[in-house]
Amino acid sequence: MAGSSFGTLFRISTFGESHGGAVGVVLDGAPPGLEISEADIQKELDRRKPGQSSVTTPRKEPDMVHILSGVFEGKTTGTPMLMILYNKDAQPSAYNDIKEMFRPGHADYTYLKKYGIRDYRGSGRASGRETAGRVAAGAVARKLLEQRGVRILAYTSRAAGIACEQVVPEEIENNPMRACDPAAAAKMVSRIEMLAEEGDSVGGIIECRVNGLPAGLGEPVFDKLEADLAKGMLSLGAVKGFEIGLGFGAVDLKGSEHNDAMSADGFVTNNAGGVIGGITTGEELVFRVAVKPTSSISKAQKTVDKNGAEREIRTEGRHDPCICPRLVPVIEAMACLVIEDHYKRLEAQGV
Amino acid sequence: MAGSSFGTLFRISTFGESHGGAVGVVLDGAPPGLEISEADIQKELDRRKPGQSSVTTPRKEPDMVHILSGVFEGKTTGTPMLMILYNKDAQPSAYNDIKEMFRPGHADYTYLKKYGIRDYRGSGRASGRETAGRVAAGAVARKLLEQRGVRILAYTSRAAGIACEQVVPEEIENNPMRACDPAAAAKMVSRIEMLAEEGDSVGGIIECRVNGLPAGLGEPVFDKLEADLAKGMLSLGAVKGFEIGLGFGAVDLKGSEHNDAMSADGFVTNNAGGVIGGITTGEELVFRVAVKPTSSISKAQKTVDKNGAEREIRTEGRHDPCICPRLVPVIEAMACLVIEDHYKRLEAQGV
Amino acid sequence: MAGSSFGTLFRISTFGESHGGAVGVVLDGAPPGLEISEADIQKELDRRKPGQSSVTTPRKEPDMVHILSGVFEGKTTGTPMLMILYNKDAQPSAYNDIKEMFRPGHADYTYLKKYGIRDYRGSGRASGRETAGRVAAGAVARKLLEQRGVRILAYTSRAAGIACEQVVPEEIENNPMRACDPAAAAKMVSRIEMLAEEGDSVGGIIECRVNGLPAGLGEPVFDKLEADLAKGMLSLGAVKGFEIGLGFGAVDLKGSEHNDAMSADGFVTNNAGGVIGGITTGEELVFRVAVKPTSSISKAQKTVDKNGAEREIRTEGRHDPCICPRLVPVIEAMACLVIEDHYKRLEAQGV
Amino acid sequence: MAGSSFGTLFRISTFGESHGGAVGVVLDGAPPGLEISEADIQKELDRRKPGQSSVTTPRKEPDMVHILSGVFEGKTTGTPMLMILYNKDAQPSAYNDIKEMFRPGHADYTYLKKYGIRDYRGSGRASGRETAGRVAAGAVARKLLEQRGVRILAYTSRAAGIACEQVVPEEIENNPMRACDPAAAAKMVSRIEMLAEEGDSVGGIIECRVNGLPAGLGEPVFDKLEADLAKGMLSLGAVKGFEIGLGFGAVDLKGSEHNDAMSADGFVTNNAGGVIGGITTGEELVFRVAVKPTSSISKAQKTVDKNGAEREIRTEGRHDPCICPRLVPVIEAMACLVIEDHYKRLEAQGV
Repeated sequence: MAGSSFGTLFRISTFGESHGGAVGVVLDGAPPGLEISEADIQKELDRRKPGQSSVTTPRKEPDMVHILSGVFEGKTTGTPMLMILYNKDAQPSAYNDIKEMFRPGHADYTYLKKYGIRDYRGSGRASGRETAGRVAAGAVARKLLEQRGVRILAYTSRAAGIACEQVVPEEIENNPMRACDPAAAAKMVSRIEMLAEEGDSVGGIIECRVNGLPAGLGEPVFDKLEADLAKGMLSLGAVKGFEIGLGFGAVDLKGSEHNDAMSADGFVTNNAGGVIGGITTGEELVFRVAVKPTSSISKAQKTVDKNGAEREIRTEGRHDPCICPRLVPVIEAMACLVIEDHYKRLEAQGV
Repeated sequence: MAGSSFGTLFRISTFGESHGGAVGVVLDGAPPGLEISEADIQKELDRRKPGQSSVTTPRKEPDMVHILSGVFEGKTTGTPMLMILYNKDAQPSAYNDIKEMFRPGHADYTYLKKYGIRDYRGSGRASGRETAGRVAAGAVARKLLEQRGVRILAYTSRAAGIACEQVVPEEIENNPMRACDPAAAAKMVSRIEMLAEEGDSVGGIIECRVNGLPAGLGEPVFDKLEADLAKGMLSLGAVKGFEIGLGFGAVDLKGSEHNDAMSADGFVTNNAGGVIGGITTGEELVFRVAVKPTSSISKAQKTVDKNGAEREIRTEGRHDPCICPRLVPVIEAMACLVIEDHYKRLEAQGV
Repeated sequence: MAGSSFGTLFRISTFGESHGGAVGVVLDGAPPGLEISEADIQKELDRRKPGQSSVTTPRKEPDMVHILSGVFEGKTTGTPMLMILYNKDAQPSAYNDIKEMFRPGHADYTYLKKYGIRDYRGSGRASGRETAGRVAAGAVARKLLEQRGVRILAYTSRAAGIACEQVVPEEIENNPMRACDPAAAAKMVSRIEMLAEEGDSVGGIIECRVNGLPAGLGEPVFDKLEADLAKGMLSLGAVKGFEIGLGFGAVDLKGSEHNDAMSADGFVTNNAGGVIGGITTGEELVFRVAVKPTSSISKAQKTVDKNGAEREIRTEGRHDPCICPRLVPVIEAMACLVIEDHYKRLEAQGV
Repeated sequence: MAGSSFGTLFRISTFGESHGGAVGVVLDGAPPGLEISEADIQKELDRRKPGQSSVTTPRKEPDMVHILSGVFEGKTTGTPMLMILYNKDAQPSAYNDIKEMFRPGHADYTYLKKYGIRDYRGSGRASGRETAGRVAAGAVARKLLEQRGVRILAYTSRAAGIACEQVVPEEIENNPMRACDPAAAAKMVSRIEMLAEEGDSVGGIIECRVNGLPAGLGEPVFDKLEADLAKGMLSLGAVKGFEIGLGFGAVDLKGSEHNDAMSADGFVTNNAGGVIGGITTGEELVFRVAVKPTSSISKAQKTVDKNGAEREIRTEGRHDPCICPRLVPVIEAMACLVIEDHYKRLEAQGV
């Protein structure tokens, strides 16, 4: 109830603060007998880790994952998997200046109001570092989904005001933006480097496509597949919006334009984005999330301290001028977690 | 796990198909001692019921609610409240023609794929009529929130391609669109009547504003207030998108533009829409949902029957050319349910 | 969280007070395609209903069940089943004398302390009548278990100080005690009639045996099959103890006596009662519950009223001098609910 | 759903196998601002650890707990607490002989049947070592309960066939049995040493008393306080029975004997054991659990191997001839977890 668990049958509980002893996850619900190694997990964590390029923070964190339970002789046993990343790069002193002040855009103020106490070191529990646990568990889900023939692909489709004009899947991991259009990616990088120079940041849109899903996956009413995806996405601190299929682009259409007709070959269009009434149609699942500009900027900003006195703050340190490239694997991980959970729920349905 | 329950401490389970015996809700978690009557519930249900105007379906359903448990001598006892609406206007024969065909935009095909069986009468469980149970429970939540000093207000902010240009709260219930701008509402009505004439439909955007919330409400990580709101909203069949604060409008901004600075008087701006890191800031909570055009239209559409043969279908009958006005009270109800649940969670936190 | 739901994947939520509008249950998680009728449900409810013999209350309640959702053309659709029993035999005036007093052994005092308000009519929510909802849902579970080849059989093994000396399954429904030994049953009846004459009551032990379970059913750690059974049983107001296998009879044994050896033909003994470490062995599942004497007696008892003044009370009215016979089908229903839920969990495990 | 979590608002998830990397717990739901140290936790773990006396296993495990998240500057922050104990005394080779055989009384066979794979090293996940995580989280609950004025005390009341004849609280920690009667304890020890000599083991009864509870704690219907306690107790591998108040001792009583009368000074007796209808009466909470004889014995036993061939097995190694003394702190921990969870639920109730 305290908010750190997600999923029903494939269920994770994350723990950890950015500068405490460790971050990580307990995954309860992996099936027994799955071959899995720390390398399988590490591969996905490496896509999320800092220090990958000029558009990500230069911080260096090895972010090595350790599987301490639930795996025996290279296979899952069906018992909870503890996946842990010890914190190494702790420089708590670097946070002394923000100890007394609320950084604009950060959860400093809201956590203090909620809890009356705050681990001010690097955003504490609200740090993006918490998502490492999600990515670790997501890597297990991804492996299961691959065995089911499901492919999950996310990418930056817009950033710094520049939109991708094509989707070239094989180019996504070849550019620092993880954008789906290399030409757009180059423009994004140059604009973001300029913003970073100014001590500023910018947001973007990440699109995710899932192929290989059958028709009939998802629950009705409250636990619609798109509802669980929306929750998973909005549970990421940087995400401010979610849409599926045409999303906000559907609102001005007529029913006769938006409804996906069916022919003997299946659906003629896929405006719905792969789900109707919470349940998959068998078409490609397509959704997008709105990513806000990174809150940490070195430009001077107006704020107050704990006593309400007005202050000026510069969030010095090592921050991501655009979080989209590092958020792409997190979006994929969350999608994997939601979808694998719904597969398990379908298997429990009985027919 | 089967998807028909929502909330953690203020928890509802809805039941019922559009043409079965009844629809309704069991609410477990209402506090004892709350004065509540069927009239309190009915008032909200009447805002959702069909037959209100030229832009809603002319179907007539009295939709009278009965409270069969959990209330004694006019007050809640703390035990589950069963609120039930018996189905009256059943014309199952009217659905004989769709028994064998999948209506475009409807969950006919996906339910059959999931369950292998389908109650084809008026969408069965996937009917919008299921939301009556949500509205009934939402009316209890609303009463509790009013006692906490919280005010929830939703309205159509765009429909049929026409955007409201101002927000005039006292005009919302005075126009058939429940739009926040009476001039825009008039244009919407005339355009929608024209579309209805053509046998077509259209979508829109509903905006919701919540005032009176304290700072510090909401859970961190997965159960962020905005994540639970997103899930609640996407759990409505007609909703295809959700955004909070600036939402998709934030993606092109710079951090220095988007971050909400603080002064001695509090937040200077409210781009975040009232939440940071899942927890309220104490500013107005503002979110929007994308509403797709109603799937039921009388225009001819291409589809297939259960055997995969191509057919033409016209969803005759009595449908809403734009569901926004009837969805407004449902959006409010879902917001009430999410927020009251989070109040209870905050009370359980202990400090 | 408010306590009226049970199960994870085969999940029920009961509602209703003994003298409100109705009692019943919402069952979410029944598979689609199961043939089920009100008669299937009624058969089990009739075993629980009052007025069956001289050792049960003479109250007459038709207790007719109505299935108002989740079933279409005689089959489950996979959506929530609302099963409801309207209250008929309400004589609230009969409860005026207990309105101000706490009946010894009843939850009158504890409910008032918890909620600050109390529906005093016939125990309200704490009434045994609440279990009708459990029995209704249990009947659905039983039908599913029968299809799996599982047989559940409970019976009174001790009552009024008289122990059964043999287990004759086919005699259980032929005696008013639902005892497994007809000779013992006759003695029980005569002793209980005498106690009823004195205005008193008595308790007993109910034993339950489940056959046809495979090895490997149940979850480890907290959700052990026996743990869920224990919870289900202790959730019945009259139950004060639970034991599985030898239970309390195991405490004086040596390990070499208690451990169940294995041979090529399987387990040699079944002291464990069919579960080890929370998971079935494939042997017969055997457990027992301790049933307290009925709290409602017409003998004079000392109590206090709401103001703390000492009073004398006689719970006049129509009560069960021994609840065992009517509790037998409830114990079976709870066992069915727990076991069917664990089957679904096993199916969701994946291998 | 996979069984490794317990509690609703004060919720724990344990992880770990006896010979994997670590065992421990994630506790989500501790309030912020509680002063807590590793020493507070260690104190309780030391009561559970092996090697305490002649009646416990001579194995030496330092069992040092590390708090890796959720605590900042000596106080809880309201975020998940990871408490971890690294495994040190691993001698997996010692388990080679049981790799192929099923030890009688152990979950070897049932786990293999359930999962198709088994971590055979020292019972893996089914090891009693899993309870270290429960004790760690229980220590946090205990600290909170102490602040509420609640005292939890468990002790061995019977072992090796010897019953305690008095309850002397201050002697419990002064004898190796943690028995409540020092004279009985001496007899228990001498009988158990003799059994250990023979390579055998024995069981017992643990009684638990909780003082300082208010009237009105607990939920009705399924989540009765005694139901949650029963589940918690039966979730311990060695526990085969649970009773509250007079328990099985109530079954032969008459209602007029068993009902607890009330006077102006409160309840006259406490046969109910502190709860009626799932909710506390304000009297002392009293329950007992039946503990089976330790399954691991060095006497020869008949069993089969994975291929079904008959074999003889001696569970050599270092085992507890009677687990009661080490189970006492685990019973207390589970009681603390259940009760603290119900306090939080009561606080969430609202009045």
